[in-house]
Amino acid sequence: MRALQGIGRLYRCLPEGGQSAVHPIDDAVLVWDGPLVEWVGRRTELPARFGGLPMEDAGGRLLIPGLVDCHTHLAFAGWRADEFEQKLRGVGYLEIARAGGGILSTVAKTRATPSELLADRCLGFLTQMRTLGVTAVEVKTGYGLSLEHELRTLEVYRQVAAQVPQTIVPTLLAAHTVPPEYRDRRDRYVDVVVNEIIPAVAERKLASFCDVFVEDTAFSVAEGERILRAGKAAGMGAKLHADQITSCGGAELAAKVAAVSADHLEKISSAGIAAMAVAGVVAVSLPIASLYLNQAPLKARHLIDAGVLVAVATDFNPGSAPSFDLPLAMMLACTMQRMTPAEVLKGATQIAARAIGLETVGSLAPGKRADFALIEAESIEHWLYHFRPNACARTVVAGQG
Amino acid sequence: MRALQGIGRLYRCLPEGGQSAVHPIDDAVLVWDGPLVEWVGRRTELPARFGGLPMEDAGGRLLIPGLVDCHTHLAFAGWRADEFEQKLRGVGYLEIARAGGGILSTVAKTRATPSELLADRCLGFLTQMRTLGVTAVEVKTGYGLSLEHELRTLEVYRQVAAQVPQTIVPTLLAAHTVPPEYRDRRDRYVDVVVNEIIPAVAERKLASFCDVFVEDTAFSVAEGERILRAGKAAGMGAKLHADQITSCGGAELAAKVAAVSADHLEKISSAGIAAMAVAGVVAVSLPIASLYLNQAPLKARHLIDAGVLVAVATDFNPGSAPSFDLPLAMMLACTMQRMTPAEVLKGATQIAARAIGLETVGSLAPGKRADFALIEAESIEHWLYHFRPNACARTVVAGQG
Repeated sequence: MRALQGIGRLYRCLPEGGQSAVHPIDDAVLVWDGPLVEWVGRRTELPARFGGLPMEDAGGRLLIPGLVDCHTHLAFAGWRADEFEQKLRGVGYLEIARAGGGILSTVAKTRATPSELLADRCLGFLTQMRTLGVTAVEVKTGYGLSLEHELRTLEVYRQVAAQVPQTIVPTLLAAHTVPPEYRDRRDRYVDVVVNEIIPAVAERKLASFCDVFVEDTAFSVAEGERILRAGKAAGMGAKLHADQITSCGGAELAAKVAAVSADHLEKISSAGIAAMAVAGVVAVSLPIASLYLNQAPLKARHLIDAGVLVAVATDFNPGSAPSFDLPLAMMLACTMQRMTPAEVLKGATQIAARAIGLETVGSLAPGKRADFALIEAESIEHWLYHFRPNACARTVVAGQG
Repeated sequence: MRALQGIGRLYRCLPEGGQSAVHPIDDAVLVWDGPLVEWVGRRTELPARFGGLPMEDAGGRLLIPGLVDCHTHLAFAGWRADEFEQKLRGVGYLEIARAGGGILSTVAKTRATPSELLADRCLGFLTQMRTLGVTAVEVKTGYGLSLEHELRTLEVYRQVAAQVPQTIVPTLLAAHTVPPEYRDRRDRYVDVVVNEIIPAVAERKLASFCDVFVEDTAFSVAEGERILRAGKAAGMGAKLHADQITSCGGAELAAKVAAVSADHLEKISSAGIAAMAVAGVVAVSLPIASLYLNQAPLKARHLIDAGVLVAVATDFNPGSAPSFDLPLAMMLACTMQRMTPAEVLKGATQIAARAIGLETVGSLAPGKRADFALIEAESIEHWLYHFRPNACARTVVAGQG
C-alpha cells in the first residue's frame, strides 16, 4: 500500500454531475494498493487505519486522474509534412485525398512497414504521452484497409499493449476510406469489411470497437450503418467519424445505432445535436484537427447546453492532427471551443473514458485504477491557461511510477 | 574553436531573399570561435584549415539560428487565470480592462513585488525558454506605470541580462495603459512619460526601444506619436502595439514615425498595410494572443504579399498570451496565419532580430553570434507540423552550451 500527501488540490472527476463537475478536494491524500485506489479524501479525514503508512509528498501540486486520449490513429508509418505546406497554401483536405494523397499515402507506407517497426513507433509515442500524464489511449486501425493488414495492425496493438503500463483500447477502423484496390467497386469493399474483416477481428477478440468514417469521400450513412451493425452483432461497440468536413448525417446515425461516441462533429446539425442528446452518445472533440484543417471548431457550447457530454482527444495521425500532445488539445478546447478548464478536464478524463467504454479509469475513487498525474500549477485554470511544454511532473499508471 | 558536423540540414536565415528564404545547407558543418560563427557550409567544402579540428556530432538533426522572441512582457507578478474563465464565457478583453481587471491588476501585483522576486521569475522563464531554443528575448516594461516602477523594472531586466547567456533587449512601455492614479487626467500621465520617464530611462541607458499601446482603451494615435517622438529624440527606437482590438490607425502611425516594428495588427487596414510596406516597418504577429482572445488572426498573407516582413513572437504576458512557448507561436503562425514553415522560421529568427534592432543574431554566417538550436526533425516542415512538447535537443548561446 502506498500513499501520497501534500496534494494542493485533487480532482476526482467522478461520473456524476455532468461536464463541469470535477469534484476537487484541497489538501488531499491518495492511498492506493497495487494497481487500485484504496482511499481518497481530505488529509484531515484520513482514516486511522492508514495512520502508519509512509507518505510520499506531492509538493503542493495538483493531482488529476490520468489523462485518457480516446481518439488516436497511433500505428502509422511515415509522415505527411509535405502536404502540410500544400494545406497552408489553401489546398483542401478532400482535394488532397482525391489526388491520391492524404490517408491513402499513409496506407501505402504503413502496409510496406514491418510490424516490429510499427510497434517501436507506437511504443515511442506512448512513452512520450506518458510523460504528459496520459495513462489510457484508444488506438485505431485504418491504414491497413485489407483483411491481412487490418489484422496485422491490431496484432501490433496487442503486442504494444503488453509492453506499456497504459490501458490500450483497440478500435477497428477498416472503414477509414475505400482502399485503392476497390476504388471502382466500393460496395465490394463494404462486403469485405462486413463479411471478412469484422468476423476475423471478432474471432480473435482484437478490437473493442468498430468505427466508420462517414463522409462524402469515405462512407455513406447507409454503408456506415451496415458496418456498425455488423460490428455490434460481432460484439464491438460503435464509434463514428462524423460531420467533420460536411454535415452529412453522421451524428444522427450515431444516435440511431446507439454508438458510444461520435467524433469530430465540426459540422454537426441541430438535429444531430438533439439526436445525440437523446441517445446519450458522447461527442469527442478534436480541436487539433480543427486547427490544422483551419476549420471553425466544434460548437461545444451548443452540445453541452443540449446535454451532450463532450470529450477532448488529440486525433493523433500523420495528416490532419500530427500531435500526440493531449494538453495542447485541452488548451485548444478552452481557447477555440470556449470550454472551461473544468469542462475540459472532465472531457479528457472521465468522459473520455466513457467514450471508449472504460469504467475503471478517468476518475479517482476507491476501486478505480490508480492512474494519475501530478501537475505543476495552482489550479486547473492556471494549468490550462499558462501553456508550457510539459507541466506534468509525474505520472503513475496502475499504481506504478 | 569548436565545430559541429552531422547536421542533417542547417538553415542560415540570412537577411537577403525575403520572408521565405531560409538558406538551407544539407550535410553541413558549423565552426565557431568563442561567441562568434567562424565558418558555415557543406561538409564537403570545409576549408583545409579546419581539418584538424575535433568535431562534435549533431546526429543528423536540424540546426537553426537561435530563436528570437521579439515581443514579451516578461517581468510581472501574479497570474490572471481567474480572468481566463471569464473570457471563455464571452467577457471581452476591453470589458475586463474597463472593470479594473486586465493589465491594471497585474500592475498592482507587480508594483507590490520585490525586485529580487521579479528577477527570479524572469530567470526561471528565460531558463525554460532556452531549452526551447530561444537565445534572444525582447522584454517590455508596462506593469510599473510610474517613474519609480518603470525604472525599477528596467533595472530588474539589466540585472537579469547579466545573469543569463541570452541577449536581452529592453523596451520601455510606460504607455501600456493609463495608470489608476491618472485615470481622470490622462494628459498629465502622457506628460509624465514624455518629460520624466523617457529622460530618466535615456539617461541611464536602460532601454533600446520605446513602445506605446495605441488602442481605444489605452493611448490615441496623437498621444502615441508624441511619446514615440520623445523616445526617438532620446535615442530609443519606436515600436507599437497597433490595431489589435480595433483598427485605429496604429499601423499608419508606425509608418509615419518610422518604427522598427508594429505588433499585433489583427485589425490592420489596407491603408496600414500599404504604409508599413513603404516605410519598411516589420509586422510582429502574436498568434498566441489571437488564439486566447478568440480573434481572427493577423492577415499574414496580405502583409507578405504587400512586401511587409512578418515576425512571429509569443507576446508572453499573464493576460492575453500566457505562454512563453515560441515553437507553439510558430506552429500557430502556420495553422492560424497560413504562413509556411520557412516563412515562420525566418519570422522567428532574422526578421524577429530585425524587429528589435539586432544585426548579429537571427542568422548564421561568419561574424554572427554563435547562437543556435538543434531540432529533432527531418525538416522545418516536419518540425512545425509534428508539434511536440519540445523538439529542441540542444541550445548553444554565444558559443556555449
